[in-house]
Amino acid sequence: MLRRRERTVDFLPYRTRWLDHDQYAHINNSVYYHLVVNTYLIKHAHLSPTTSPLIGLVVSSFSLFSLRSRFPPVTNLGSSSVTYEVAVFEEGTEQPGAVGGYTHVFLDRETRKSAPMPLDTRAGLAGLASPTCKL
Amino acid sequence: MLRRRERTVDFLPYRTRWLDHDQYAHINNSVYYHLVVNTYLIKHAHLSPTTSPLIGLVVSSFSLFSLRSRFPPVTNLGSSSVTYEVAVFEEGTEQPGAVGGYTHVFLDRETRKSAPMPLDTRAGLAGLASPTCKL
Amino acid sequence: MLRRRERTVDFLPYRTRWLDHDQYAHINNSVYYHLVVNTYLIKHAHLSPTTSPLIGLVVSSFSLFSLRSRFPPVTNLGSSSVTYEVAVFEEGTEQPGAVGGYTHVFLDRETRKSAPMPLDTRAGLAGLASPTCKL
Amino acid sequence: MLRRRERTVDFLPYRTRWLDHDQYAHINNSVYYHLVVNTYLIKHAHLSPTTSPLIGLVVSSFSLFSLRSRFPPVTNLGSSSVTYEVAVFEEGTEQPGAVGGYTHVFLDRETRKSAPMPLDTRAGLAGLASPTCKL
Repeated sequence: MLRRRERTVDFLPYRTRWLDHDQYAHINNSVYYHLVVNTYLIKHAHLSPTTSPLIGLVVSSFSLFSLRSRFPPVTNLGSSSVTYEVAVFEEGTEQPGAVGGYTHVFLDRETRKSAPMPLDTRAGLAGLASPTCKL
Repeated sequence: MLRRRERTVDFLPYRTRWLDHDQYAHINNSVYYHLVVNTYLIKHAHLSPTTSPLIGLVVSSFSLFSLRSRFPPVTNLGSSSVTYEVAVFEEGTEQPGAVGGYTHVFLDRETRKSAPMPLDTRAGLAGLASPTCKL
Repeated sequence: MLRRRERTVDFLPYRTRWLDHDQYAHINNSVYYHLVVNTYLIKHAHLSPTTSPLIGLVVSSFSLFSLRSRFPPVTNLGSSSVTYEVAVFEEGTEQPGAVGGYTHVFLDRETRKSAPMPLDTRAGLAGLASPTCKL
Repeated sequence: MLRRRERTVDFLPYRTRWLDHDQYAHINNSVYYHLVVNTYLIKHAHLSPTTSPLIGLVVSSFSLFSLRSRFPPVTNLGSSSVTYEVAVFEEGTEQPGAVGGYTHVFLDRETRKSAPMPLDTRAGLAGLASPTCKL
C-alpha cells in the first residue's frame, strides 16, 4: 500500500520560512522534524503542553526524502507509546515528497518515568491506528 | 558492539542555544538533525559547499533518543552515497544520549542527478567505514 | 498614528511550530526574525532568490515585543536600500503583539557591493512607502 | 568609543550550524538572535530557567550587521529591566561583524507581571553596566 494523499488522516498547511532553505536552495532535511506531531495530540487527544500530567517525548524519529530509501513502515499504538507516520505533500501533489515517523513515549511530567496514557488520549490517537503502509 | 565514546572517529564540540530547548525543558529531538555532517565532509573529504561540482543531499535520516529504541545500525560507503552514524555525548559521558544516522547521495550541482563521488572525497570518507555497530 | 491591522499593506498567515516556543512557553523573540520579508520581494518586487543579479541582505533589524518599548519608527525607500515595518497580529486581534523592522541593502550577487535596485523592484516596493507610523 | 574585542566583558565560543547559512551562503540575520543572553544570566546572575521565581522576557531587540547602520547604543540596568549589548566577532578579528542589543524585563513566573529583580541577580548584572558605547 503506497502512502498517498487520499490515505492521509489529517492535514496541516504550513508556510515555509526563508531559513528553512539551505545553501543548496532546497528545504533542509532537519526542517521536517520541526513540523506537526504535537498539534494532533492537542487537537484530537486532549494533550495540554502546559497542564497535562503526562508529556510525550520523542524517543526515535526518521525521515525518507527519497522514496527509494527503505525503512520499516511503522504505526503503532501501545499503552504508553505511539508511533506516527507523517508525510509531507507539496500543494497539488498526490505523492509525498517526504515520509517519516516519530515514536512518542508518555512520561510523568515530574518523575519523567513512562506511564500509561489516559483513556481520552488513547481514544484520540486510535484514529491514527491505520493498517501498516508499504512505501 | 556498543556505541561508546572511545569508538567514535571524530568529535565536534557544540554549545547549545536557548531555543534548542522546548517547553519540556529538554533539547528537542529536531535539534540533533541540525548538527554535524557537512563539517566532516568539508574538513576530511574536500567538499566545498559553494564550489564543488557535486553536492550531498540527505535522502534519509533517523535518530534514537532512547537506547532501548531499535533501528538497524547503518554505516555504508558506496560509489555515490554514504551513510554516517552520529552519536551525541554529553560532556563527560561515555555512553551517547542520542545515536542517529544520515544517508547522503551525491548529486551534480546543476542537473541534480546522482553522480559518483570524486576519489578524494571517497578517500576522505573511508575513515568512517568502520565495522557495523550494534546499539 | 498607531500600528493597527487596518493600516497593514500585506498579510501572510503563519502556522507556528512547537520549537518556536521556549521554556517559558511563549514564542521566543528570535522566531519573529524568521518570518516574512523575502516573500514580499518575491511576490511584489520581481526578486528571484536564485537568479536575480541583485540580492538583498539585512543590514539592521529590530523588534519591539512590548508596545511600551520605544524605537524610532522607520519606513524608507532609497535607491539601493529599503526599510520595512513588520507587525505580527494574533488571529482576531487589531493591535499587533510585536512590531519590528528590517533594512535591506541590495548588493550585486557576485561582487557583494551595493547597487541601485532595478526599476521593477523599486516599483514593487513603492507600495510599502507609507507615511511614517507612530507606535 | 568603538565596540571592539578588548572592551567586551564576557565571551562565548559558538560553532555555527549548516542551517545558520541561508541561500545567499552567509549567516542569516535571524540566527544572531538565537545566541547568548541567558547564559550570562545563568552563569553570573543566579538565574535558573526552571526554578527561579522570576523569568526574563525580551521586550525589544535589535541588530546591526553593517557598522554604518545607526541605532542608539544602549546599556542600562534598572530595577526590573536590563539592556545588554552583544557583539559577534569572527575568530581572530578585533572589530565585530554584528552588534546588537536586547532588553529583558523580569516578570513573576506565574502572574507574568513585572517585578524587581533580586539583589544577587542585580549584582551579577552590574558587571555589564559599562559606560555607553558609540559604534
